[in-house]
Amino acid sequence: MKELLSPISGFPEFSPEVTRLFEWAKKIISKNYELAGFTPIETPSVERVQTLLSKGGISKQIYGIQNLQDITSEKKTKLALHFDLTVPLARYVAQHYNDLTFPFRRYQIQKVWRGERSQKGRYREFYQCDIDVIGDGSLGLLNDAEIPMIIWKIFSEMDIGPFKIRINNRKLLQGIIESHGVSNDQLVKVLNIIDDIDKVGLDKATQKLLDISLSETNINDLLTILTEDRTNQETISIIENSTMTHPLFLDGKEELLSVYNSILKLGVPPSFIQIDLGIARGLDYYTGTVYETGLTLHPEIGSICSGGRYDNLAENFTNRKLPGVGISIGLSRLLPQLVNVGVLYPLSPSPAKVIITNLDNKLTDKYMELAGQLRENGINTEVYLENKPIGKQLKIASDKGIPYAIIIGDKEIKNKEIQIKFLRTGEKIQVKNLINNILNVILD
Amino acid sequence: MKELLSPISGFPEFSPEVTRLFEWAKKIISKNYELAGFTPIETPSVERVQTLLSKGGISKQIYGIQNLQDITSEKKTKLALHFDLTVPLARYVAQHYNDLTFPFRRYQIQKVWRGERSQKGRYREFYQCDIDVIGDGSLGLLNDAEIPMIIWKIFSEMDIGPFKIRINNRKLLQGIIESHGVSNDQLVKVLNIIDDIDKVGLDKATQKLLDISLSETNINDLLTILTEDRTNQETISIIENSTMTHPLFLDGKEELLSVYNSILKLGVPPSFIQIDLGIARGLDYYTGTVYETGLTLHPEIGSICSGGRYDNLAENFTNRKLPGVGISIGLSRLLPQLVNVGVLYPLSPSPAKVIITNLDNKLTDKYMELAGQLRENGINTEVYLENKPIGKQLKIASDKGIPYAIIIGDKEIKNKEIQIKFLRTGEKIQVKNLINNILNVILD
Repeated sequence: MKELLSPISGFPEFSPEVTRLFEWAKKIISKNYELAGFTPIETPSVERVQTLLSKGGISKQIYGIQNLQDITSEKKTKLALHFDLTVPLARYVAQHYNDLTFPFRRYQIQKVWRGERSQKGRYREFYQCDIDVIGDGSLGLLNDAEIPMIIWKIFSEMDIGPFKIRINNRKLLQGIIESHGVSNDQLVKVLNIIDDIDKVGLDKATQKLLDISLSETNINDLLTILTEDRTNQETISIIENSTMTHPLFLDGKEELLSVYNSILKLGVPPSFIQIDLGIARGLDYYTGTVYETGLTLHPEIGSICSGGRYDNLAENFTNRKLPGVGISIGLSRLLPQLVNVGVLYPLSPSPAKVIITNLDNKLTDKYMELAGQLRENGINTEVYLENKPIGKQLKIASDKGIPYAIIIGDKEIKNKEIQIKFLRTGEKIQVKNLINNILNVILD
Repeated sequence: MKELLSPISGFPEFSPEVTRLFEWAKKIISKNYELAGFTPIETPSVERVQTLLSKGGISKQIYGIQNLQDITSEKKTKLALHFDLTVPLARYVAQHYNDLTFPFRRYQIQKVWRGERSQKGRYREFYQCDIDVIGDGSLGLLNDAEIPMIIWKIFSEMDIGPFKIRINNRKLLQGIIESHGVSNDQLVKVLNIIDDIDKVGLDKATQKLLDISLSETNINDLLTILTEDRTNQETISIIENSTMTHPLFLDGKEELLSVYNSILKLGVPPSFIQIDLGIARGLDYYTGTVYETGLTLHPEIGSICSGGRYDNLAENFTNRKLPGVGISIGLSRLLPQLVNVGVLYPLSPSPAKVIITNLDNKLTDKYMELAGQLRENGINTEVYLENKPIGKQLKIASDKGIPYAIIIGDKEIKNKEIQIKFLRTGEKIQVKNLINNILNVILD
């Protein structure tokens, strides 16, 4: 039996206290998504293999599914688990185009699966919490400002400490790069080098740029503008005063400044937003605004939330032009790491606020009646229904993290009172057995 | 492209309005599970094939998973999607035994997958909403009464019309059957025949019982006691006055009457509970109380929630005796059918209560500021950010099912008021632009 009881690599399983933390976080996320008028959708976990391979899917990352009885036969699977929520969204919007109202504001919190070699902090099964707004033909730039505002609200409510939502614009970035002696067919190579600077360092990046024959001056200028530490005001004045005239630079500059100003007008404090001209984020997909989010005190956790603007969500599924902007919170990667670094704490193993102990089996009707009253008042209540010494029962309640124990025995029945014990301190209080008295104590 | 946009048989995808109904139902279910002190757990979607086959798993029902690049090779898959939440629970409790506190009260709302031929109302991917309490060595009978009480609360809150939770006891049933000339090795056959009565009818069942050489008298007596329509009081007096002395009959009788009385004492109105001696429910698993739940006005929907008591949850994974009792709501099967028969209605496609229309791009700061205030007050609010004629904007809001539109143009700014339009009736009202005035109207 024992070999069946070890964890399966890459498929995390959490304790009830961490599971409850996930539920808590998912509630905050969906509440804030809905406050901004986004509607939940859920797509099947399973898509056609052909759908998944049509846009960015890499076959070794994809888990095909097949009946066990067919799996050894020659029958080829046509179905697989989705590896993100973007490809399913594209397929969904194309398929249900006629039933949807645009701009289509949707959020989606689901598990996705990737058949990668599992690494520390990377899972094969994990949650993504996506939010996107999709336009029909066009989509206003203010949407690019509303998305980070929502993320700011969520992380503020989760109280995960200082963080920065870094924004950039892909047109601007391309304009800057191409204004520094990079030809259009070198662009992807240079974007890759810039994307990797955080990992490999400036010296290696410089060498790689020299290797593709960029001049030293151009390299120095380029790396300075893209990677120098600056305040937002300094960056804004650099791009406002720049002499670059590349049309993508001019377009991108206008977009980025407009989005930045709108974010501030939406009430996001400037300290949470950082213009970072070095962010590239993926190569084919994003076409305008891009976002990455990091914890100020825990840069080692990496980007906890990223996304951007794309011109054409569903080009593999429809001829309609469906531009959109969206962002995704990688919850499964984020929460365990926040627990590890002590930013968040697991909740109690039980959601119960009260346990009613069992002193006397003849009194269980009484216990159950009181539990019913407490539950009517929204208090999560467990009744201990087994026969154990009271000390053992209180130990069990403590182990479950239940804060209050209610103790009712013959004496209490006779005196028409009950005893409430606050298990964290051992403090006891006798109250008359009236639901309001009890609520006064435990809701204190 | 088009061939990628058709539904995949057995993998349902719902509109936003039905998805929102699912979210609504899941919230009611988890809230009531937590009110009774049950904690959420979540197991990976993926288990070892060996784990799934160890207990009731049928290989043609199980979806193996494998990297697409490996799937055509000889490599045999060791992992598969879970087909229920009971086998994962058993494995979970055995694996984490030392970290859990017993009785372990857990609920679990997750998707499961079955590679069956898909039929009407049966899916290959669907939600189960399980609740179980697991004892360590023993578990009191009152737990068998608390579970149906929770289910009664849930379906009452969902307001799905009259329903009956039918209860029986497997020991009692076995005792009755074996008291009617059925030998122990005929038991499974007879249980199967009884389980099928609803499908095949009494005549066919009688014939099948004759075929295994039961006497006509025994058959008549047996079918009468198991299938006759009776009130609970009539059934209770039949089993109380019975002359049967089979020890399982006597044990089961005591348990069933005790559970029934406790359910009523927990406040469940008697009209929602029906003692039904004919319920068998699975053959190997349940050992005591069993439940099935049906809608009184829609028997065609079948059992919407079933479960029971088992002596030994995890015998394939541990030598410890872990008795439990639990029930499962088959939400994916239930909700679409309740919508079909008109018992439940889909929600609006958008969760927004208010849309702020866009009369003038110069006023978007104003619109966003007001949206921020409304959201602070818990009002789901969409701001229309595109440029369309106001009529078109109001049509979009109506299509999304948003009840209120707020209209602010130059005139309103000048007069320091705003216009609120109730889109279902077309009714308009002008209010002074103060958040409290607006809340008064839309929270009315």
